[in-house]
Amino acid sequence: MNATSPPVIGIIGGGQLGRMMALEAPRISLNIRCLDANGAKSPCGLFSPGGSVEGGLKEEDKLRELAKGCDVITMEIEHVSVPALAALESLGVPVRPSSNTIRLIQDKYVQKSHFEKHGIPLGRYMDCPTVEKVKEAVEVFGLPLMLKSRKEGYDGRGNAVLRSLADVDEKFNLLYNGGKSGGVYCEGWVDFVDELAVMVVKSTKGEVKSYPTVTAIQRSSVCRVVVAPARCSRSARLLAEEVARNAISSLGEGAVGIFGVELFLTKSGDILLNEVAPRPHNTGHYTQDACAVSQFENHLRAVAGMELGDTDMCVGAAAMVNVLGEGDMSSTLKVNDLAMGMERTTVHWYGKAPAKKGRKMGHINVTADSESELQGNLKKLLDAVGLTEEGGKDGGRIPKPEPLVGVIMGSDSDLPAMTSACKILDTFNIAYEVDIVSAHRTPEKMMSYARSAHQRGLQCIIAGAGGAAHLPGMVASLTPLPVIGVPIKTSTLSGVDSLYSICQMPRGIPVATVAIGNAENAGLLAVRIVGSTREGVMEKMIEYQEGLKEVVEGKSERMGEMGSKEYLKQMENKSSTVGV
Amino acid sequence: MNATSPPVIGIIGGGQLGRMMALEAPRISLNIRCLDANGAKSPCGLFSPGGSVEGGLKEEDKLRELAKGCDVITMEIEHVSVPALAALESLGVPVRPSSNTIRLIQDKYVQKSHFEKHGIPLGRYMDCPTVEKVKEAVEVFGLPLMLKSRKEGYDGRGNAVLRSLADVDEKFNLLYNGGKSGGVYCEGWVDFVDELAVMVVKSTKGEVKSYPTVTAIQRSSVCRVVVAPARCSRSARLLAEEVARNAISSLGEGAVGIFGVELFLTKSGDILLNEVAPRPHNTGHYTQDACAVSQFENHLRAVAGMELGDTDMCVGAAAMVNVLGEGDMSSTLKVNDLAMGMERTTVHWYGKAPAKKGRKMGHINVTADSESELQGNLKKLLDAVGLTEEGGKDGGRIPKPEPLVGVIMGSDSDLPAMTSACKILDTFNIAYEVDIVSAHRTPEKMMSYARSAHQRGLQCIIAGAGGAAHLPGMVASLTPLPVIGVPIKTSTLSGVDSLYSICQMPRGIPVATVAIGNAENAGLLAVRIVGSTREGVMEKMIEYQEGLKEVVEGKSERMGEMGSKEYLKQMENKSSTVGV
Repeated sequence: MNATSPPVIGIIGGGQLGRMMALEAPRISLNIRCLDANGAKSPCGLFSPGGSVEGGLKEEDKLRELAKGCDVITMEIEHVSVPALAALESLGVPVRPSSNTIRLIQDKYVQKSHFEKHGIPLGRYMDCPTVEKVKEAVEVFGLPLMLKSRKEGYDGRGNAVLRSLADVDEKFNLLYNGGKSGGVYCEGWVDFVDELAVMVVKSTKGEVKSYPTVTAIQRSSVCRVVVAPARCSRSARLLAEEVARNAISSLGEGAVGIFGVELFLTKSGDILLNEVAPRPHNTGHYTQDACAVSQFENHLRAVAGMELGDTDMCVGAAAMVNVLGEGDMSSTLKVNDLAMGMERTTVHWYGKAPAKKGRKMGHINVTADSESELQGNLKKLLDAVGLTEEGGKDGGRIPKPEPLVGVIMGSDSDLPAMTSACKILDTFNIAYEVDIVSAHRTPEKMMSYARSAHQRGLQCIIAGAGGAAHLPGMVASLTPLPVIGVPIKTSTLSGVDSLYSICQMPRGIPVATVAIGNAENAGLLAVRIVGSTREGVMEKMIEYQEGLKEVVEGKSERMGEMGSKEYLKQMENKSSTVGV
Repeated sequence: MNATSPPVIGIIGGGQLGRMMALEAPRISLNIRCLDANGAKSPCGLFSPGGSVEGGLKEEDKLRELAKGCDVITMEIEHVSVPALAALESLGVPVRPSSNTIRLIQDKYVQKSHFEKHGIPLGRYMDCPTVEKVKEAVEVFGLPLMLKSRKEGYDGRGNAVLRSLADVDEKFNLLYNGGKSGGVYCEGWVDFVDELAVMVVKSTKGEVKSYPTVTAIQRSSVCRVVVAPARCSRSARLLAEEVARNAISSLGEGAVGIFGVELFLTKSGDILLNEVAPRPHNTGHYTQDACAVSQFENHLRAVAGMELGDTDMCVGAAAMVNVLGEGDMSSTLKVNDLAMGMERTTVHWYGKAPAKKGRKMGHINVTADSESELQGNLKKLLDAVGLTEEGGKDGGRIPKPEPLVGVIMGSDSDLPAMTSACKILDTFNIAYEVDIVSAHRTPEKMMSYARSAHQRGLQCIIAGAGGAAHLPGMVASLTPLPVIGVPIKTSTLSGVDSLYSICQMPRGIPVATVAIGNAENAGLLAVRIVGSTREGVMEKMIEYQEGLKEVVEGKSERMGEMGSKEYLKQMENKSSTVGV
């Protein structure tokens, strides 16, 4: 940090992205100056101690004015003039990311070609300078086909889905826009399961760091919700981060700053790069409240030539919901007013007016200890902005959170005994999954289940087995998670065989064994484990234990009233009750 | 929220507290205007879209100028002119907190008298208008005696410890300051264990909310480090929060905004109120990175007449370390540069110059999933600012973090068997405590141990017992935490008695039972439970399991090389090795 003469960062564009940089810059001793049509009154200009310039983002003289007194120039939007950036560079002004990086990214067809050349996995694509070429592409890729402007696309503008050849002229001309769009290209339809995104930051020294992969939920091609970490397998998340880091590394030396990398997760588990944005990105807003160093701070650090900051999450799960203009301000603000009263929720208002329909006016971040605990608050916000969890014609679904507890058994004959564990988890409102996994009959399934359990977000596993009961111990040897073993009662040895098989594990691999046939206690133990870091769950457990006491006290009272003989008579009349 | 015409908040004072308000205000659509000797160039003035006024904080005409266009006036410092505030109020300008609240708080003797009248627990105190009165106080309270100016005290200024009657004239005159200090009063010496603090916020509607209690570590009467939540018992934390809320409630209707409440925790477990500051406070800075709504946002919400926000922590533990001026800027910045590269660490620089010795220049916030995981980063920062964990003459210690695992046993004869659990916890670097707690011989100790375990921050308990082994099950019935039972091997029944006693628990109260005599597995199970929400611990467990595999593979290789007969011979030569 340099505090005696804080470096001045010039931002091209003074909208919300610039503003959010400006509100973080002072903490690390950086000064902001910005260029915007609204100058000092722009969302960012209001917080720019380095002053602001009023003017168009593509005007070369305004850029030169911005650069006066700046140590480095960056941008909050990629739709800038590359020649004007290059002119600044030729004057010796550092521009980060560089004009070359912006040139490459601005033209999405050139971007795709670059990434293809560098071995980054992509969907199929083809340049379509004419309607005839689009028709050719339909023959190769089939319908539907994604048509895109090569340049100037943003929040769904510049994209069109071609579903029938009858529309080809209309859609082409729309995107071609008399040549202003830089031409048209197409992408073969990707039948993706989810859209993912990764923020990647690259320093002047070439260091590359990625934030966790997130699920980006688009509706009508506009980002509406982001869930972090992404609700897919851990291996898919790690692969997405690797692809994203490789993509940004391939951009070379001039690619300095933060980049939003949008990706597809296909049904077969492949990760395909979709698009890259050379700036802080809507899918990275969650980092403001989920990470110690946000995407805005890391962008500033990178362009200022400073060391990059930590990109890990400080919370178990987070979500971001965009607040879009509803036409009038008071309708738009309803979700904010709701969010202001919610737990673990932070409101980010951009200070823009008017609240035009669909305009990005702000966003709301929510955090939680785990995905399943996030659901309550997320659902409230989705309701308030009129979004459903299910996807549809207009865009993707919000994937369900991964369960916290896995309940498995060697055979369906164990299900009646194991079901009381599930009932307990239901009572405590803890998400779980149930499956039949046999150590002896489906050893491969057992191995993949156990090995992937912690990667899928499970926090503990309950395994029931009887006789030569190998399932709990085998699973315990393949997972780092706590495994709870339920010895199923057997007809030959009353379950003592099961108990010894499960409990007497060798040194190194523990199984938390409960009483013979007592799956209810296995459920309760899972609740205690999950609750050991969650005050809400722990409080419910205390209540539950108070309840047990009350049941016994109630029985004692009744016995006292009616005498033990009469009480016994009544007990014998009832069907046998297993004691507390 | 009102976004069409954002309310303007006028802040008296434009230092770091105002600045941190100003950097949060835009998110919730509030505009800041400030009054400071450095006006627009003050730390806060740089980020005040409502403009700023250059002038003294006590000048009535400057206050009137500040109030122009403001919807409400608040302050970042209590050393303001009460008559000037009252004059504003008489013009119809809302002042929050009100002039009456500030009058009461400014004079610490009046503050004490008020709280005493309202039943808030305090140490002993006495007005000392003359040296003779101080001598009288020494007779009543003894030495040492804390002398304080009634007004204008701040960061240790206005305080003096009287250790000998020989110094009485000198110390009195110092604090009396020719009458400018509002006079002198004294406080009887409080032999406290720790200094605690609670941020309390009160809305215009009278709603009162508190943030969690923190430990405030002072050195030479200056706050240096804050640890959240406070490292004392949960009951002491809750009591401190209650005392703090009651104190602020007692201030009445005009007390709107956030208040820093400083408290003492005495050896006997009592909570005594020390002082109240009517503004954001150094002990609340951790809320910026540990809570969804910080003390600054909640202060703004309160004074703007908005609903209060969530005051709970989003992380398991947090700490704040102040960055004090070292005389020159580059020495001062060393800790910042270190912090910029640390995990889960956020730097807050105030933009002040020069870096005068002892001046508050910035602070650093660190968060973690638990107290013990906080230690590594906290230690690095303490080293960097030259602080030790132990207290001394100049101030308080930094309490040790509470352990995560409790290891208990019914008798010291179980210790040899249980010690391998401790070794495992050492290997995985998980903080634990060890104690002898017998269900049969110390039933009261067992009850209090088990009942308080979750309140003290334990996350699981390992209990070893043999024969009629009641300890694990009894503890499990008294705690909501997961309890791991180790059946100790017995001479009569080889531990089968212990196994049945521990494992065969009735429905409702589970004990996670491991193999007979296998405390190592109990330790490993505790690690798995602690690791189920902590990626770092989980990764170490995966490594450990890989290690087990390698050990066996190594043995297999050696046996292949030398043949099984020779291998057996070597085994017999060695002292018996219990197999993996």
